[in-house]
Amino acid sequence: MNFCSHCGAPVTLKVPAGDTLPRHVCTSCGRIHYLNPKMVIGAIPEWEGRVLLCRRAIEPRAGLWTLPAGFMENAETAAQAAARETLEEACARIEIGEMFSFITVPHINQVHILYRARLLDLDFAPGQESLEVRLFDEASIPWQEIAFRTIGLTLRHYFADRKAGRYGFHTQDLVDPPR
Amino acid sequence: MNFCSHCGAPVTLKVPAGDTLPRHVCTSCGRIHYLNPKMVIGAIPEWEGRVLLCRRAIEPRAGLWTLPAGFMENAETAAQAAARETLEEACARIEIGEMFSFITVPHINQVHILYRARLLDLDFAPGQESLEVRLFDEASIPWQEIAFRTIGLTLRHYFADRKAGRYGFHTQDLVDPPR
Repeated sequence: MNFCSHCGAPVTLKVPAGDTLPRHVCTSCGRIHYLNPKMVIGAIPEWEGRVLLCRRAIEPRAGLWTLPAGFMENAETAAQAAARETLEEACARIEIGEMFSFITVPHINQVHILYRARLLDLDFAPGQESLEVRLFDEASIPWQEIAFRTIGLTLRHYFADRKAGRYGFHTQDLVDPPR
Repeated sequence: MNFCSHCGAPVTLKVPAGDTLPRHVCTSCGRIHYLNPKMVIGAIPEWEGRVLLCRRAIEPRAGLWTLPAGFMENAETAAQAAARETLEEACARIEIGEMFSFITVPHINQVHILYRARLLDLDFAPGQESLEVRLFDEASIPWQEIAFRTIGLTLRHYFADRKAGRYGFHTQDLVDPPR
């Protein structure tokens, strides 16, 4: 951030009065521009024991597999974000279930949240950001080609919980550097 | 948003190619500036059946009572945010427990997340943003003077769960307009 998005003047980094961290402060109008983590919301679309994965057409991690997920938008609920991303990336309609995983990733200022979901039919196809969309059972999950650690962790929790006969809610922090 | 925070040129609202919603796009460098919901994270600090509330010294809702909570910062985990806000607003040290409530509030582009927490000692005091900090049992909670709906809902779930002998995880959407 170099300029004030309100008045267009340059910003400077300084600790405002009463604050504890440096912020981008406008040198003209004095507005403080806070930066906050973003939520990446997605779904684990289930169909008869298999889950729907998308092979990414775009960076980061183009060519690798992931669950449908993306940045939550203003003016939507978290569940709506998960359903929208699933429609955009996999052209698939789902019924959202319980929140399943909540993983904070502080080194990239993100929180990844995945919901269990029921795929409503088999009418799915790659969206603009996907090369391929496919259902996988546990044995055929491409574990070595999963795009993001949060997605790999979520899938491992999911299959472990299914084996245990009870789905939990998994919170976790990825505090080590990116792989 | 009127100006590009990267190059300082004016931004315009338009739907970028391949997108579905209007975004702030720079008229000079072409950067797209996305706006995303923010997370407000807080704690329910418990001490022998009572919970710690703060009376707000600042707007919005100055003079009303709330749980310690505030905007999650970049580079911290959600649990760290809850502990930091409790220290800032109530000068209190806590041990964070399970995530208790997750409430999306789309009309103000926020998600409110509250953790159960154990107050470590009785050495608390109003922080800069609080007028007063006090422990309340259920009967003495000032229900008519709670600052935010998400906090009132969280406290009601909390006391109901305690009566039931088992604390759950509560997700909810507040889709109606602000009170």
